[in-house]
Amino acid sequence: MPDSTPTQRAAAWLASLDAALTRGDAQGAAALFQDDSYWRDLVAFTWNIKTTEGKAAIADMLKATLGQVKPRGWKLTGEATEANGIAEAWFTFETELARGLGHVRLKADRAWTLLTTAQELKGFEEKKGKNRWFGTEHGVFPGRKNWAELKAEEEAALGITKQPYVLIIGGGQGGIALAARLKRLHVPTIIVEKNERAGDSWRKRYKSLCLHDPVWYDHLPYLPFPDDWPVFSPKDKMGDWLESYVKIMELNYWTRTECKRASYDEKKKEWTVEVVRDGKPMTLKPKQLVLATGQAGMPSMPTFPGMEKFKGKQHHSSKHPGGEGWEGKKCIVVGSNNSAHDIAASLWEHGADVTMIQRSSTHVSKSDTLMELGTYPLWGEEALAKGITCDKADLIAASVPYGLLGEFQKPIYAEMKRRDAGFYEGLKKSGFMLDFGDDESGLFMKYVRRGSGYYIDVGASQLIIDGKIKLKSGVSVKEIKEHSVLFSDGSELPADLIVYATGYGSMNGWAAQLISQEVADKVGKCWGLGSNTTKDPGPWEGELRNMWKPTQQEGLWFHGGNLHQSRHYSQFLALQLKARLEGLPTPVYGLTPAHHLS
Amino acid sequence: MPDSTPTQRAAAWLASLDAALTRGDAQGAAALFQDDSYWRDLVAFTWNIKTTEGKAAIADMLKATLGQVKPRGWKLTGEATEANGIAEAWFTFETELARGLGHVRLKADRAWTLLTTAQELKGFEEKKGKNRWFGTEHGVFPGRKNWAELKAEEEAALGITKQPYVLIIGGGQGGIALAARLKRLHVPTIIVEKNERAGDSWRKRYKSLCLHDPVWYDHLPYLPFPDDWPVFSPKDKMGDWLESYVKIMELNYWTRTECKRASYDEKKKEWTVEVVRDGKPMTLKPKQLVLATGQAGMPSMPTFPGMEKFKGKQHHSSKHPGGEGWEGKKCIVVGSNNSAHDIAASLWEHGADVTMIQRSSTHVSKSDTLMELGTYPLWGEEALAKGITCDKADLIAASVPYGLLGEFQKPIYAEMKRRDAGFYEGLKKSGFMLDFGDDESGLFMKYVRRGSGYYIDVGASQLIIDGKIKLKSGVSVKEIKEHSVLFSDGSELPADLIVYATGYGSMNGWAAQLISQEVADKVGKCWGLGSNTTKDPGPWEGELRNMWKPTQQEGLWFHGGNLHQSRHYSQFLALQLKARLEGLPTPVYGLTPAHHLS
Repeated sequence: MPDSTPTQRAAAWLASLDAALTRGDAQGAAALFQDDSYWRDLVAFTWNIKTTEGKAAIADMLKATLGQVKPRGWKLTGEATEANGIAEAWFTFETELARGLGHVRLKADRAWTLLTTAQELKGFEEKKGKNRWFGTEHGVFPGRKNWAELKAEEEAALGITKQPYVLIIGGGQGGIALAARLKRLHVPTIIVEKNERAGDSWRKRYKSLCLHDPVWYDHLPYLPFPDDWPVFSPKDKMGDWLESYVKIMELNYWTRTECKRASYDEKKKEWTVEVVRDGKPMTLKPKQLVLATGQAGMPSMPTFPGMEKFKGKQHHSSKHPGGEGWEGKKCIVVGSNNSAHDIAASLWEHGADVTMIQRSSTHVSKSDTLMELGTYPLWGEEALAKGITCDKADLIAASVPYGLLGEFQKPIYAEMKRRDAGFYEGLKKSGFMLDFGDDESGLFMKYVRRGSGYYIDVGASQLIIDGKIKLKSGVSVKEIKEHSVLFSDGSELPADLIVYATGYGSMNGWAAQLISQEVADKVGKCWGLGSNTTKDPGPWEGELRNMWKPTQQEGLWFHGGNLHQSRHYSQFLALQLKARLEGLPTPVYGLTPAHHLS
Repeated sequence: MPDSTPTQRAAAWLASLDAALTRGDAQGAAALFQDDSYWRDLVAFTWNIKTTEGKAAIADMLKATLGQVKPRGWKLTGEATEANGIAEAWFTFETELARGLGHVRLKADRAWTLLTTAQELKGFEEKKGKNRWFGTEHGVFPGRKNWAELKAEEEAALGITKQPYVLIIGGGQGGIALAARLKRLHVPTIIVEKNERAGDSWRKRYKSLCLHDPVWYDHLPYLPFPDDWPVFSPKDKMGDWLESYVKIMELNYWTRTECKRASYDEKKKEWTVEVVRDGKPMTLKPKQLVLATGQAGMPSMPTFPGMEKFKGKQHHSSKHPGGEGWEGKKCIVVGSNNSAHDIAASLWEHGADVTMIQRSSTHVSKSDTLMELGTYPLWGEEALAKGITCDKADLIAASVPYGLLGEFQKPIYAEMKRRDAGFYEGLKKSGFMLDFGDDESGLFMKYVRRGSGYYIDVGASQLIIDGKIKLKSGVSVKEIKEHSVLFSDGSELPADLIVYATGYGSMNGWAAQLISQEVADKVGKCWGLGSNTTKDPGPWEGELRNMWKPTQQEGLWFHGGNLHQSRHYSQFLALQLKARLEGLPTPVYGLTPAHHLS
C-alpha cells in the first residue's frame, strides 16, 4: 500500500495480528514481524516483564500463552506517525483478564518493535474519576463509623489481628510508589522502614545532595509535583514530599521498624517475617515479600589492608553527612561516580584539602546537556506542551526494547561530545579517565547495565579541571596506614578522612542477609541486562534481572530504581500482586534461571 | 454581519472595544454595550472586585480608570460559541501593570456581560513551568546553605527579627489557599491558627460531617486532589489534606496561636497585632491584616430567657461533637439548616429522641440532584471530559454577574422541583416549611445573599418525612426551663440536650472583637449582595460586601467562603496584596460605603 497513510498501514497490521491471534496461529502472527524484531510484554501476555526477540521466539511465546490470554479487541488510538521509514502507532486491546495498551513500530509493514502492557485487571479496576468512592453513604445508618474511625481500626488491626497480603521492606520512593498502587487496588500492605520518619532515606544523606534527575522525570504515581517544584529537588524537600505523600495516600507505613529475618513456608505459601517495631519484636505472615531496600543494594565497603589501624575518620559514602567541619583537613574520596563527586565538591566548599581517587574510567555528562538531549524530549515542559504527559512518556520509553536502546542512545552522546568538546578536553587534561560506555552508548545504558560508572556533572568536574579537587587517577588503594593512604603506584597521601564512595552490591545481597544465602543464590544477581559489557556479564537477558517480576523464589520480589522506574514499574508489579491476591491464574512465561550469584 | 461566524463577530467587537479604549473614548466603549449590561472586573481595571451595570456606569468607570490602566492587546483565544442568540468568547489582554483574561457575552453584537480579570502582575509572575526555580545552583560555592538550612532560617526570623508583610488570622481553607498564593508571589506571610494542628477546624466538627460540595468543586490552588479522592471528603480526611498542603506549600503556619488584639497606625500604615503563641505573648507588625476566620463569622448564640437554668447540656452547633452518647436521651436541635439536619440525623443514628425546631422556612436540595443540575455542568467528570478544567470552570462561573445570576439559577430549581416532586410533597406533609428562595432562585443565591436558609439533603429529610426526626415547625423558643424547652405556641418539650444550630454572624464581628467596634462599624456588614430579599437588605451592591477586596479600613481584608471561593478569590486578593508590597499604584475604583453595621 504505497499510497496509504501510516494510520491505514498500522490499522491493517493490527487487523492481521488480531486475525492470526484469534485463530490461534502463533506462526502466522510471528510472520507479521521483521526478522530482527522485539515483542516487549509487561504482564499482558507473559505474567512477566519479558522481551521476546525474533520471529521464532515470538512464535514460541505465543504458543505458550495464547490459549490462556485470549487477546482481542485491538484498536488503534489516535493517528499513527511516520519518520525515517518507521511508522509508529498506539493501540488498546484486551485479554481474558486485563485491559491493555500497546505501541508498535512498523518497518516496511512488518513489526520491528511491539509493546504490550496490562493496564488494569477486569473486575479489579482502580476506583477513580467517575467511579471514585462517594466518601459518605448518603442516608442514615445507626452505628455507622466515620472515615477516621475506620482508618484507626484498620491501622490497629493490620499486622496484628489481620495479616498483610504484601510486606514491603524499605520505605523509600520505591516502596512508597508500590504501596500507593496497592492501596488503590485494595491489597492489604505494610511498608516497614527503619528510620524515624518517611523521607529520612533522603534527609540523612550528605548535605548538598539534590536529585540528579529533573522534576518532570521524578513524579510519584497519582499526585504530581506542583508546577513550581524545583527542577532538582533538594534532598530534605524530597524527604518532606515523601512523608506528605505517605499520609495523603493513607499508606500503612511502619517507621522505626527493622526487618530481622524472613523465611518462606513452601507448603503454606507464606512468609514468616521477624521485625522489631519501635523496639518490640513482632512476627508478620505476608504471602508476598517485596524487597525495596534500594536498587543499589547494600553498601559495598571495600576491605583494604590496614583499614583497622586508621586513626582518622573513615566511612562509606552512604554514611557521610556532608563537608561541614573538615576545613583545612586532608580528605580522600575513593571513587569517581555521582556520590564521590558530590562529596568531594562539598568538602572543597567547606575548605578541605580533597583528593579524589579514580580507580577506573568514568562517564561524565553535564547535567544541562543531559537534560536537554536525554530527558526533555520525553519529560519536560516542551514535551508537555506537545501533549506528552509523564504517563505517556513512561510508555514511550518502555516501547524501546533494551536490545535496541543502546542504538537509540548513541546519537545523544555523539551530540554531547560535540557540544561539550571543550569541557571534555579539559577533563582529560586533568588526568581524568573518561569514557562514554563500552560501545559509546552513554550514561543511561551504564545505569541499566551496571548501575554505576558515571557522574552527572553539576560543578565538581570544573573543580577537577581547575585542580581544586586533586585527582589521583588509575591507581588503586594498596594499604591504609594510621594517618595516610598508600597507593598501587607507591605514592602515599596523608589523610584525616577517607570516604569510600565505592558503590553498592546487587540487591540479592539483601535476600542473603534477611532470608538466606541459599535463597539469594537461587534468585541470583539483580539488575543488569547480560550485555557482556563491563560489569554486566552475559548471557543476554533482554530485561533487568529480577526486577519487578517473578523470581526463582516464589513470593519474593525486588522493586527499586530511580523515581521514573519506581513510578512506572510499580504499576506492573502491583498488577502481578493483585492478580495473585484474587487467585487469578498467572502462569509465568520465560522465568529466567540465575546465571550469576551477585 | 448576519452571515459571519460567532468568532468573527466577537473579534470585531473586541477590535472596536480596543479602538475605543486606545483613543480614551469611554463613551464610545460604553456604546458597545447593551442598555442592560454588566462589566465585571476582578482587579484588572478597578483594583477592586466590582461589577459596573449599564452604559452610563460603564462609561464612568472607564473615565476614572483608563488613564492609568492603559488596556491593550485584546486577543480572542479559541473559537467563540453561540447559543440562544448569545455569542460567547474568551480573550486575553494587557494593562499597564498586568496580564489579563476575559470573557464576553454578545447579544445582537453588543456586549451583554463582560468579565475582565488580572491574572498576573508584569515583572512579578509566579515562577512555574519553564520558569521554575532550579532547586540547586549548579557550580560550587564555599559557604552555601542548603534548602533545609535556608528554610529553618526563614522560619526562625519571620515574625521575630523580620516582620511579615501580611498576617492572616485563621488557618482554615481560606487562609491556607491565600497563603499558598502569597508564597508563590514571595509575599512574606504568617498564618496564625488557634488550634493544635492545621485541619483541626474540620476535625473538631461533629463526627458525621462530610463536605457538602463534591470534590471537583473543592480543589485548593496548585495541588489538585488525586483522582480517587472521594466525592464528599470526610471531615478528618479533609483536615489531613489541609495539614499536608500546608507542609508541601511551605507555609509559615503558626499553630496554637491566638490573636488577641489588633490596631492600625494610620501614619505608619502598619498594624500592631498582639498574639499568644504557644502560651507566649508576641507582637507582630504586618502592613496588611487578613481576617480569614470563617465566612460565616462568629457563632450566633441566641439568648433565650432561662438558658442559665438549664440542667442538661446546651451548646452552639459549632461546639457539638456528634451524636455519640445520647442514646435514649431527649435532644432538641434549634435550627433547620445544614448543621441542624446533620446533627439531628447523627443523634437519631445514635438512638436519641430528636426534635428539630424549624423557626422559619428553609430550602432543601437533594444532594444528587443539586450536583447533577447545579455543579456538574462546570465541576465534574463530564465537564473535565469537555476540557472544562477547574480553573476554567471558576472563570465561567465568574463570568456571570450577580445581577443575572438569579435568572441563570432559576431553571435549575424549576427542574429540581419537577424531578423531586414526590420528595418535596412528603416533606411538606411532614409540616416542613419549604421554600426555593424569595424569587425561586434556589440554594446558591441564598448562599451569596445571606449565607443561610438551606439544607443539602443527604438523608435527614427522609427521617423527617418518616417522623424519625420529630419536627416542630413555625414556632420560636419562648423560654428554657431546667429540663425542658417552652415554645411560642405554648407547647413544651423535655430536653437533655439542646443544640443551637442558629448560624453565624457577619465577619465584621471578628473585627469588632479583635480591633474595635468603631472599625467594625466603619467597614460594615460582610457578605450579601444588597438584593433586598430576606436577610439581605439593599441597596444593591452587585458584589459580595467586603469580600476579597479593599474595605473602608485601609490594610484590612476579609477572606473566606466555600472551597471554590477560597480557591478562586484568593488569586485576586493575593494580586492586590502583592501590588501593594511592590509599591505599584493601586487606585481603587468604586469602594462602597457601609450601609449596614452587621
